[in-house]
Amino acid sequence: MTATDRRSFLKTATAAGAGLIVAPQISKASVSKQKKKDGEVNIAFIGCGGRGRGHLYRAAKTEGVKITAICDIDPEAIPKAQKILTDNGHPKAEVYSNGEHAYLEMLKREDIDGVMIATPWLWHTRMAVAAMKAGKYAAVEVSAANTMEECWDLVNTSEETGKPCMILENVNYRRDVLAVTNMIKDGLFGEVVHGRCGYQHNLLNVKFNKDLKFGEGAKGEARWRTQHSLKQNADVYPTHGLGPIAHMLNINRGNRFLYLTSTATKAVGLKDYIQEQGGVDHPYAKLPWKLGDIITSVIKTANGESIIVTHDTNLPRPYSLGFRIDGTDGTTNFDMGTKRIYIEGKGKYDKWDDFQKWQDKYDHPLWKKYGDIANGAGHGGIDYFVTREFINSVKEQRQPVIDVYDAAAWSAVTPLSEASIATGSSPQYFPDFTRGDWIKRKPVEYK
Amino acid sequence: MTATDRRSFLKTATAAGAGLIVAPQISKASVSKQKKKDGEVNIAFIGCGGRGRGHLYRAAKTEGVKITAICDIDPEAIPKAQKILTDNGHPKAEVYSNGEHAYLEMLKREDIDGVMIATPWLWHTRMAVAAMKAGKYAAVEVSAANTMEECWDLVNTSEETGKPCMILENVNYRRDVLAVTNMIKDGLFGEVVHGRCGYQHNLLNVKFNKDLKFGEGAKGEARWRTQHSLKQNADVYPTHGLGPIAHMLNINRGNRFLYLTSTATKAVGLKDYIQEQGGVDHPYAKLPWKLGDIITSVIKTANGESIIVTHDTNLPRPYSLGFRIDGTDGTTNFDMGTKRIYIEGKGKYDKWDDFQKWQDKYDHPLWKKYGDIANGAGHGGIDYFVTREFINSVKEQRQPVIDVYDAAAWSAVTPLSEASIATGSSPQYFPDFTRGDWIKRKPVEYK
Repeated sequence: MTATDRRSFLKTATAAGAGLIVAPQISKASVSKQKKKDGEVNIAFIGCGGRGRGHLYRAAKTEGVKITAICDIDPEAIPKAQKILTDNGHPKAEVYSNGEHAYLEMLKREDIDGVMIATPWLWHTRMAVAAMKAGKYAAVEVSAANTMEECWDLVNTSEETGKPCMILENVNYRRDVLAVTNMIKDGLFGEVVHGRCGYQHNLLNVKFNKDLKFGEGAKGEARWRTQHSLKQNADVYPTHGLGPIAHMLNINRGNRFLYLTSTATKAVGLKDYIQEQGGVDHPYAKLPWKLGDIITSVIKTANGESIIVTHDTNLPRPYSLGFRIDGTDGTTNFDMGTKRIYIEGKGKYDKWDDFQKWQDKYDHPLWKKYGDIANGAGHGGIDYFVTREFINSVKEQRQPVIDVYDAAAWSAVTPLSEASIATGSSPQYFPDFTRGDWIKRKPVEYK
Repeated sequence: MTATDRRSFLKTATAAGAGLIVAPQISKASVSKQKKKDGEVNIAFIGCGGRGRGHLYRAAKTEGVKITAICDIDPEAIPKAQKILTDNGHPKAEVYSNGEHAYLEMLKREDIDGVMIATPWLWHTRMAVAAMKAGKYAAVEVSAANTMEECWDLVNTSEETGKPCMILENVNYRRDVLAVTNMIKDGLFGEVVHGRCGYQHNLLNVKFNKDLKFGEGAKGEARWRTQHSLKQNADVYPTHGLGPIAHMLNINRGNRFLYLTSTATKAVGLKDYIQEQGGVDHPYAKLPWKLGDIITSVIKTANGESIIVTHDTNLPRPYSLGFRIDGTDGTTNFDMGTKRIYIEGKGKYDKWDDFQKWQDKYDHPLWKKYGDIANGAGHGGIDYFVTREFINSVKEQRQPVIDVYDAAAWSAVTPLSEASIATGSSPQYFPDFTRGDWIKRKPVEYK
């Protein structure tokens, strides 16, 4: 943002008479003049690894999207990204790869409207903040922030610049998730009182290469992700589970997270894996892992619900986000392995009912309309919707459905869980990232 | 206990050189002289309602059991209990029914060896304490105690009198529970780090009679149990879930509960039910229920495991105790609706395996031997084993497998969860009811 821009922005904000906290209005005012020729938007990419290229691929296939700049420091990633572009009828993009801060160079370009960020966790917030400061819409992979200060960086920058920041939480778009969201809205479960979710994913072969290598010189996420298990005892990856439940419970929109407690088990899973794979004399066999194998956080909300969030990535187990919703008229578990539902008076007493039947009945309009396209697009279709929503928000110069307050509140579980675990599960209070606005903000409508 | 008895007991305890904390040894020393003619024991009953008559029935069918005294203040219960006795070849028992303290009269009898107590919760501890003080083995239904003081009353009385107190937790004997206990002992799950359990039982038609009546004048448990929902915000019924997990994790036997946090949801389920059944103008429609609909407690153990305990009795849902165990080599859910298991390298990667196959492999010797008899005996066989164990402990003048330290530690979740909820989920520390002995006590062997 140039000095002139900032002055003009501040003038708009003051004219609105509401100061910095009315981000959506400011956003509309300050970004409208950047609009490109009818409907066309320019999306740039920071991080062209597997995840980034997925977004790139979907963006390249979207009508009205121009891609002129990509950024990655991994020389292997760039040609793969360029091939996606040329395979899909786009010219090659300009490449920014000169060191860790090459993205700052790219962000100086005036032709870019939005930036999708898919990099190691520690870069998410600083890149999103830089993108917003450069006047771009930011989209950032999960989690959006690592520390409480970073959560505030996202919120404050978005409010100051008037640029939205979307957290790319694809699970919010799962067909069963959106159907249950509809069921809740329709009152099927009565008054909802409780939710459960979590990231329960055996990452043993993600955290370690086949030769057990991790850290510098390792391939893939083992290069950077594993270090968090060595140094941090926290729910370092809360949003795949919590994002959907947060929207179901209208968090930041008439409700908010009040506090949590977190309890970590001992950390023995990674040690066990290394010793099984590499023997008890392996140089890594006695590393002092910090990340408890299972971390249980219990969140209390302003509206009186509780939410259990699980983080479980060090143990052998089938993948599961373990969703559950309980209300005064019924309950459901919807998980990869188990989907079941019980609605009072709508089936046999004390017996689970077939979930699919109810999912079909409450299928979300988005899935009815785009389900066929989505299904081929990655992670069972959900990636299609999350990329689409970001691009649409840029095209329509509006806040994305998943916004910066979501990014901050969901990501805040990481530092809060760390503090709770470090203090014998003492309760930790969530900041109100909306600065009071949650009381009047309206529930999400997925578009 | 007479003054002479007490002196003789104290002398024995001093002679043993170990003071009051070596309860099992004291117990053997002080009770052996009471043994009846070869193998025969006399079991009395306080509380002859549905649950008490179940125990009475199973005791009446057990060889070597004499039943000469029963106690209940409900005139309808007595003839039903007597009929069980006469139907099973026993003479009628002497009846103690003269007021709430009639049981004290009964406990004066010298012919009674053991007492089974199945009364409303508030009577459990005082009756068990009185039984032990009268020199009898005590068995008490779940939960054993309502307050922390009562937990200590049980422990201190048992240690002082040398009389055991068994908590009649039948779920510890479930066939799947004992099989998983065997699997853990065999190392199938590697190092166990986490367990889950809970009492998730739609008690709407237990807490209210058909006409919505509860409290004085109501039938069944609605007479006394519902009041706890009106006045207490706590996990008032933790042991069905926690008992099995506690034994699996060797709690009080090389491990112990360190602390818990508890979080309650709002209390809207009972209000919703009353308004649905009785209309919004029903006199009970606006009662100020205290018991949160779902109460989540997370326990941390000395050995570094965590345990999630759920209490969920105000909402419509299928019955479930929601068991789960996680270790470094595998995980299992074993529940009424879902039983599944995953053992690293012993099946398809990332896919749940059939639980029954593993249950059969690890079937407990008790079930192999007595399964056919047990199956007809109540709650799918588990009641057979719990009644049997108490009677055998009296016959063999030994501590029961489920002992007074179990009764105290498991029941302590009620007062601790209440304190945690009342203080915004602050952590609450478990007393060490074993006074340090947990370090050297040996794991349970079910006999």
